[in-house]
Amino acid sequence: MKYCFGVDIGGTTVKIGLFQTDGKLVDKWEIITHTENQGEAILPDIAKSLKEKIAEKSLSEDEIEGIGIGVPAPVSADGVVKNSVNIGWGYKEVKKELEELTGLSVQVGNDANVAALGEMWLGAGEGQKNMIMITLGTGVGGGIIIDGRPLIGAHGAGGEVGHMHVNPHETEKCGCGNTGCLEQYASATGVVRLAKRRLAKDDAPTVLREGEISSKSIFDALKAGDQVAEEIVEEFGRYLGTALATLAAIVDPSVIVIGGGVSKAGEVLLQYVEKYFQKKSFFANKDTKFVLATLENDAGICGAAKLILQ
Amino acid sequence: MKYCFGVDIGGTTVKIGLFQTDGKLVDKWEIITHTENQGEAILPDIAKSLKEKIAEKSLSEDEIEGIGIGVPAPVSADGVVKNSVNIGWGYKEVKKELEELTGLSVQVGNDANVAALGEMWLGAGEGQKNMIMITLGTGVGGGIIIDGRPLIGAHGAGGEVGHMHVNPHETEKCGCGNTGCLEQYASATGVVRLAKRRLAKDDAPTVLREGEISSKSIFDALKAGDQVAEEIVEEFGRYLGTALATLAAIVDPSVIVIGGGVSKAGEVLLQYVEKYFQKKSFFANKDTKFVLATLENDAGICGAAKLILQ
Repeated sequence: MKYCFGVDIGGTTVKIGLFQTDGKLVDKWEIITHTENQGEAILPDIAKSLKEKIAEKSLSEDEIEGIGIGVPAPVSADGVVKNSVNIGWGYKEVKKELEELTGLSVQVGNDANVAALGEMWLGAGEGQKNMIMITLGTGVGGGIIIDGRPLIGAHGAGGEVGHMHVNPHETEKCGCGNTGCLEQYASATGVVRLAKRRLAKDDAPTVLREGEISSKSIFDALKAGDQVAEEIVEEFGRYLGTALATLAAIVDPSVIVIGGGVSKAGEVLLQYVEKYFQKKSFFANKDTKFVLATLENDAGICGAAKLILQ
Repeated sequence: MKYCFGVDIGGTTVKIGLFQTDGKLVDKWEIITHTENQGEAILPDIAKSLKEKIAEKSLSEDEIEGIGIGVPAPVSADGVVKNSVNIGWGYKEVKKELEELTGLSVQVGNDANVAALGEMWLGAGEGQKNMIMITLGTGVGGGIIIDGRPLIGAHGAGGEVGHMHVNPHETEKCGCGNTGCLEQYASATGVVRLAKRRLAKDDAPTVLREGEISSKSIFDALKAGDQVAEEIVEEFGRYLGTALATLAAIVDPSVIVIGGGVSKAGEVLLQYVEKYFQKKSFFANKDTKFVLATLENDAGICGAAKLILQ
C-alpha cells in the first residue's frame, strides 16, 4: 500500500490527513496556522508535523507518493502564490519550498478548487468528471472540475463564481468593489441582507423580527411555515438557481454540489434552487443533478491528497 | 513532413483543408453538404473527397496523422453526435463511421469549440492556453479553451455562452425557449432588436429610420456620428461586456477572441465591450486581452486539424 498527505491551510488551523492512495483516510490532525511574520513558519511547521507522523507510523519515503496542499489564494500551475491575505503570505514558491523542506513531491492548489476535487474523489460528486462545487459561506466560492481536472485559469483565479454579475440594479457594493455579484445574495451574509431588505419593506408578521437574523434562523422559520421567510428563500433561490443555470450553460456539468454553512439548511435549500435552475437552464443542462456536499471540513484534505494522485 | 486534414461541416458546404502538422495550409476546397435522407451521404462524400486528394497529392497513409472534424452539434468525448438538425443527422457515430470509411484516425468536435481551437492554434489566440472565443452571428456561440483543450462538458454542450442569462426583465423569448439570454442582445438579430426597441421609444432623428436595419448599418451609423446608433451600441456593449466579465470570473482566460458577422464592425466594437468589461470584471481578470478573430471562415478547418494533433 502507498500513502499520501493532504494539507488544507486555513486562517486559524492547518488540517492534515494521511491517506492510503485508494482514498482511505488513515489519520487526521490539526496544527495552528502561525500567520505572524508574513506566515513564514507555516511551511516549516507543516514539514515538521509531517516528518513526525512519518516517524510515528514508521513509513519509508518510497511508500509516500507525495503531499497535496490547498491554499486560500489563487495558485499558478507551477505552485506559486502571489498573495494570500488570510495567512500573511506575499509571493511564495509553495511547491518549491515544501519540496525542499520535506524531500517529497508536492502539488499545490487553490482551496476552493481542492475542496471540489475532494467532493469528486470521496464525497457528493464521487465518480463524476464534470462537476461544479459552490460553497455558500461568509462569501461564495467555487471549484469547477472539467474532465476530472480543476479549472485553474490564466491567473489561477478560475471558478470565482461568487463574482458572477447577477443584478444590474444593485446599489450596495460587494466586498470585491463591484455591485450585483452573486455573493451579495447567496452567501451567509447575502441571505441575511435579503432578509433585512424584505423586513424593511412592510410590517408583515414574521418570527424573523425577533432576535438576530442568520441564514439558519431564516431557513428554520421557512421550515416552520413562516411566509416572509419563504419569500426571502424564494428570492435567494431565484438568484442562485438562475446563476447556476448560466454557469451550467458554460461548464456543462453532470452534477452541482452545494456546500458551506448556508447549505446546512439541507434538502429544502436544493428545492428552491432547483426550481429556478429548471426555469432558466439551457435544454442540454436540464438533467444536471443537485446534491449537498458530504465531506464538510474534510473536503480540503481529501482534495489536496487527490492533487498528488492525478 | 507529416500531414492532417481539417473538415468543417456546415449546413450548405463542407470545408476541407489539408495541413502540414506544423500548421501550414497546403490546400483547401469545399464540397456540397447533402443533407437529404438524414444526411446519410455526408460522411461517404467526405471520405471520397479525401481519398481523391490523397491520390492527387501522392500521399502515403503513414504520412497522414489523421482527420479532425467539426460538427454543428454537441459531440461526446468518444465522437458521437445525438442530433444535428442543420445537417439532418440523428444519432451518428461520426468517429467510428469515418474511421471505417477512410482507414485513418478521426477526432470529432463541436464546431464552436473547434473554431476556438483554430484561433488558438493559428489565429488571434496564438500561443494562448486559456481562451474564450465568442462568435456573434445569427446566434451567439462560444468555444472555451482551458489549458489548451476545448471545454466539452458532460453532454458535449460546454461553452453555450449565448444562453447565459443576462436580463431578468426580458419578455420576448429566445430561440431556446428561455427569456433574457445573451443571444437576444449580442447576436446579429439581437442588436437589430435593440435598435428597433430604441427607435420605437421616441422620435429622435437617426439615419437608422431609413432603410433596413442590420448590425452593419448600426455600426456604420455609429462611425458616422449618429447619436441614436451610439445609444444602441452602448446597450449592446453593456450586455456583452458584463456577460464576458461573468464568463471571465468563471473561466479566467488570458484572452477573449470575438468573431462572427457582427465583429466585422472592427475595433470600435471592442471599445464598447471592453468599457463594460472593465467596469464589471473581477479584479483578477482586469488584464484580460480582447482581440478580433482573424481566421474568418478558415477557423473551422484549422481547429479541426488541430483536434488530431492534440
